[in-house]
This record gives sequence, C-alpha cells and structure tokens, in this order.
Amino acid sequence: MSSQGVGEDCLGWAARDASGVLSPYKFSRRTLGNEDVHIKITHCGVCYADVIWTRDLHHDSKYPVVPGHEIAGIVTEVGSNAHRFQVGDHVGVGVYVNSCRDCEYCNDRLEVHCTKGVILTFNGVDFDGTITKGGYSSYIIVHERYCFVIPKSYPLASAAPLLCAGITVYSPMVRHKMNQPGKSLGVIGLGGLGHMAVKFGKAFGLNVTVFSTSISKKEEALSLLGADKFVVSSNQEEMAALAKSLDFIVDTASGDHPFDPYMSLLKTYGVFVIVGVPSEVKFMPANLIIGSKTVAGSVTGGTKEIQEMIDVCAANGIYPNIEVIPIEYANEALERLIKRDVKYRFVIDIENSLK
Amino acid sequence: MSSQGVGEDCLGWAARDASGVLSPYKFSRRTLGNEDVHIKITHCGVCYADVIWTRDLHHDSKYPVVPGHEIAGIVTEVGSNAHRFQVGDHVGVGVYVNSCRDCEYCNDRLEVHCTKGVILTFNGVDFDGTITKGGYSSYIIVHERYCFVIPKSYPLASAAPLLCAGITVYSPMVRHKMNQPGKSLGVIGLGGLGHMAVKFGKAFGLNVTVFSTSISKKEEALSLLGADKFVVSSNQEEMAALAKSLDFIVDTASGDHPFDPYMSLLKTYGVFVIVGVPSEVKFMPANLIIGSKTVAGSVTGGTKEIQEMIDVCAANGIYPNIEVIPIEYANEALERLIKRDVKYRFVIDIENSLK
Repeated sequence: MSSQGVGEDCLGWAARDASGVLSPYKFSRRTLGNEDVHIKITHCGVCYADVIWTRDLHHDSKYPVVPGHEIAGIVTEVGSNAHRFQVGDHVGVGVYVNSCRDCEYCNDRLEVHCTKGVILTFNGVDFDGTITKGGYSSYIIVHERYCFVIPKSYPLASAAPLLCAGITVYSPMVRHKMNQPGKSLGVIGLGGLGHMAVKFGKAFGLNVTVFSTSISKKEEALSLLGADKFVVSSNQEEMAALAKSLDFIVDTASGDHPFDPYMSLLKTYGVFVIVGVPSEVKFMPANLIIGSKTVAGSVTGGTKEIQEMIDVCAANGIYPNIEVIPIEYANEALERLIKRDVKYRFVIDIENSLK
Repeated sequence: MSSQGVGEDCLGWAARDASGVLSPYKFSRRTLGNEDVHIKITHCGVCYADVIWTRDLHHDSKYPVVPGHEIAGIVTEVGSNAHRFQVGDHVGVGVYVNSCRDCEYCNDRLEVHCTKGVILTFNGVDFDGTITKGGYSSYIIVHERYCFVIPKSYPLASAAPLLCAGITVYSPMVRHKMNQPGKSLGVIGLGGLGHMAVKFGKAFGLNVTVFSTSISKKEEALSLLGADKFVVSSNQEEMAALAKSLDFIVDTASGDHPFDPYMSLLKTYGVFVIVGVPSEVKFMPANLIIGSKTVAGSVTGGTKEIQEMIDVCAANGIYPNIEVIPIEYANEALERLIKRDVKYRFVIDIENSLK
C-alpha cells in the first residue's frame, strides 16, 4: 500500500460553479492500486472541453471541477502488477481513465466506445463512484492501460496536446484512409485540432488546403504549418475553383456553418469527417448522393491508436504548435480559447508553476 | 451499315408534356455503329425516374419523353467491332448508355461518375446531340460497353429491375462491406429498392430488420421477402429497443423523414447509406460523432459492378418480386407507383404488348 493518495495532498485548480473561474484547490486521489501508475504531472493542454465543464455548458458539471485531459508527466510510482511502466518513464493520459475492459470494444482496444461507457478523465463518475479530476493538478493515479509511453526524445510539453487534439484528428484520418500520399485534403478551421490535421496531412504526403473564415491565418498556415493552399471560405470564387477537387475534408469547426459549400468540393467517393460539434449537420442529399460521398463522425480514439499516433509523431518529428503558460494564466487562457485567440494550443507548465 | 435505325421504325410510348400521359409514339434511333448492339426489348421496369421526367418534376424534361431505364431484351444485331455479344444473347441496359470512356472513373469502369457526365438512358443529351429515349420502346441501340450479359437461366422479366433498383442498393452495400455474414442490417422503406436491399441482405447472411411506416407490409416482409424483423417506425418503444443494435442501415425512403431516430439505432462504426432522395438530410452531430458513425450516399453503379450484381443474382437465385403489366397499363402503373401501391416493381411486357 502506498502512502501517496492518502489525505488532500493533490494540489489542483478547480472551478467551483458555473462562473468557471479556476482557483487553487486541494483534494485527495485514490491510493495506488496494483495496476495503477502514479504520475507527477508536468504539463496539461488546454482543450475546449475545459471550458464546457468548468462553465457547466452541458448542464452536467459536478463541482468542484478540476479540468484537463491532455496530460503529460513522469512516472513516480507503479503498482505491483503494473508492468508497462517504470519510475522515471515519460507518460501521457488522455480523455479517459477507465472502461469496463470486458466488452467487444475494450477487447479491441477501442475503449472510447466501451459499451458500459468510458470514464472521462475529469467530471466523470468512475466505477467506484468517485468524480474524476483532471490534469490541472500536481499528480494523477491512473490504471496503466490508460497511460501512454512518450519517448524521452519527445518534449513532454509538446506531447500533451496529442492526447486529445492529436488523436481526435489522427484516428479518423487513418480510419478513412487519408494516409495515401498524393491525395488531397481540406482542413476546415485552424485551431488546436485543425493545425494538427494540417501537420498529419503533410506527414501523410497529402496536398493540404486550409479553409478559414479569416485571412489573418493565411501566412502562418502556409509558412509555419506547411499547408499548400489557403482559402477564405467566404470567397465564393476561390471556393468554386476548387469544386470536385478534394479527396478528403476534416472539419474541425465547432461553430455552426453550412456544409453544402464544402461537400461540393469533394471528388467522387470523397470523405468528409466531422470532429467539431456544431449544433446540427444539414446538407442537400444531392451533395452526398451524386459522387457517392461519405460523411463521417469521430471521437478521440482507442488506446492502441493513441500509442500508435504518439509513435508516429515521435518518428516523424510532428509537434503541435504550443504556447506554454503558467497555471496562474489558466483563466485568461480559457477566455482567449473562447475567442479563438490561440496559436494553436495552450499548454500549462504544471511542473514549474503549480506549487 | 445496317438498314435498321433508319426511319421511324421504333415504336414507343412517350409523354408529350408535363401531364405525363403516355401514348404511342414512333421515332427513329441511330444506325448501328461498329461497337453497338441492337436489342429487341422484351421487358422494361417502371422506376420513379419515369415519373420524374414524364411529368417534368425536375424542370428539365425534353419532350417527347420515352421513359424506361431498366431494360432487358435479346440481341438481334451486333456491330462489326462489338465482340462481347452475339445475336440471340440476353442483355440488359440500365440507367446510362454512354460516357467519355477516357476519364479516371471510366477507366475504372465506374462510368456513372464520368467526369464529362454520364449520358442517361432517357431524357439525356448524347454526345452527338440526340435526346436519348428509353425502354418503353420496341428496340434500342447501345454501345456494347453499356450492355450486360443476362444468363439465359435468369428470366428477362426479373432481370429488368436489377438494372436500376438492384444496382442502386447492391453497389453501396458491397462498397460499405455489408456483405459480412452475421452482421445486422436495417432497411428503411419497402419499395423497389428496399425489397432488393432485403434480398441482398439475406443473401449476404445478414440479420435484416425492415422499417416501414405501415404495418400492412409486415406479413410480406417476413414471409415473402425473408426479413427477420419488422418495425413500424412510429412505434417508439420498438425503436428504442433497437438502440445501438444495427451495423448497417440502407435508407430507400424518398419522402422527407427524420434521420436521428435511425442514426441512434446504429452500433459504433455503423454505416447509414442514403439511396432515396429526400429534400434534405439533417441530424444531430452527436448521433454521428458518438460511435464514430458514417453516413454515405450512392447512385447506381459502374458497368463492372452491374455485371457482378447480375451474376450474383443468377448464382444465388435472387429475384425481384415483380408485377408484369402490358404497356397499355403504363399510365395506371405510374399513378400506382406515386401512391406506393406496388409489390414491388412493375415490369412492362414490351415483347407481348407493344405492337
């Protein structure tokens, strides 16, 4: 039995109510189980999910809410039956920390689709009844199944955004065979998810066109992220010139937007993947049927593909563009995230600022 | 040069205006080209497309309109360079009769997606400027590429509906891997397309559930078509009991209907194929994203898969359920089709009634 996890020895930042304002908060975590890993958190990415549940936008927040599900850190203790990790290993934890481990999806390491419901990393109710608390905190204890190896050559700060933003676009891109060199990809929206879709697209050898509502992102999209083309989506002439030219589109925009103008840019058998969450999806049937196109949705990924993605990023030098911030900046970071004023992911330096 | 095709020697039934009323009409067809096949039409299926263009529902009808794109018949003459057919062969002609034969899709025998535009079997403008005329007629001349071998063991009357209704469901079912025995299929709507989807589903070894607005089709769906289950879609209890239970859904309903109640019946990675043409497609993003589902559209198929489907039907004894009618009944048949009063496809006995 470990002495860690007893008492309120975990320091986090939590929102106490729907104002969403974060402030320091001490709490306890469970004692280390046999198959658990104790992780000293060094970094945590800032995801829009953090806004959703700190502000109770889904009306299911369980305060106090300690957000954060893009966690990177260092193993400080392992349970007696946890064999995948050793003290000192660099590890990541993503959007979920538990599942039934017994259903068809868990058996295929697609735990995010667990038939009993996957347990989210924060604001979730774990099987023991405790409310999960996320990565805006000094440490976390997680069953080793839901921890990922981060190669020591890969910076922990850069690894954090892979655990949600990265896998959310990587998983459908691979599932829908967007890793075919020479094909063409459109990316709608250039936030945390969109900029990763551009990077994966280029790593896969695709010709990448970025669609954005604002011309302000053009220079960076082309020079910094390596996109091949940039189109302001309100420019009807440029949009029309791209008719039937794209094999794939990854739509990362969460705000409401029309789908038909983009669907018409797809070639025959083109695939349109939605990873943002608009309030509805609506389009003309002709834009789907003519050309036998596909519209697909996706949520994060299973543990097998998350590890695969991290390894692909390490092997190919794919790094998110991040702005590292101290925990004291978290409230302002969430405000800026709402205004989409971030290039392209905030990462909290937990190790050096959460004391 | 053949003497056939000269003069107004082709007897058909045509609509002269948007009333859509069909009556006898004599016209000429082109002379037999080197790669053409001259087909004495024995049967022609009655498709909703016949209603659309005889009544100018798409505001692009080119009168007189001779409808019909589910054509079966017997070869009576072949061009000097047409090598696939011999006089006496049984052949079919489907939704299109020409394409550029030079684009990437034509080269893959996916001519329906021809980049120059596929030439429809009736009410189309062929590359030589002539308006195509369909199968409600005594004979047709078609480039051999767009003709299909019908095994002599397979009745010509039964073959006709395969050429549109059959391929329209077969193509997406195979493309989206619905031919995996033991998986589950939902079929929405039980008309010409829907009843073929049930038959293909059973031939592929699927567990098939039919969704219909009317209980009146239950007995036949189960006993005649071989479906495993029948659900009246307005029965919320029965619908709820099927939540997350289906691998695939083929939606053949053309009328407007909600999509969310059906999307929620799909398992994780479930595929929803739309082959009907409602006025819009609209659903909640959560019903697509949670479970990483897919919505796909489809139109008929290429020449390669059409021949494959005919061969599958012949090999497995898959026959459409048809009501054979004389040409004099065509107007009433179209009226009944509009009222969905058909089990499950009208086929005109051209050979014995069009004189």
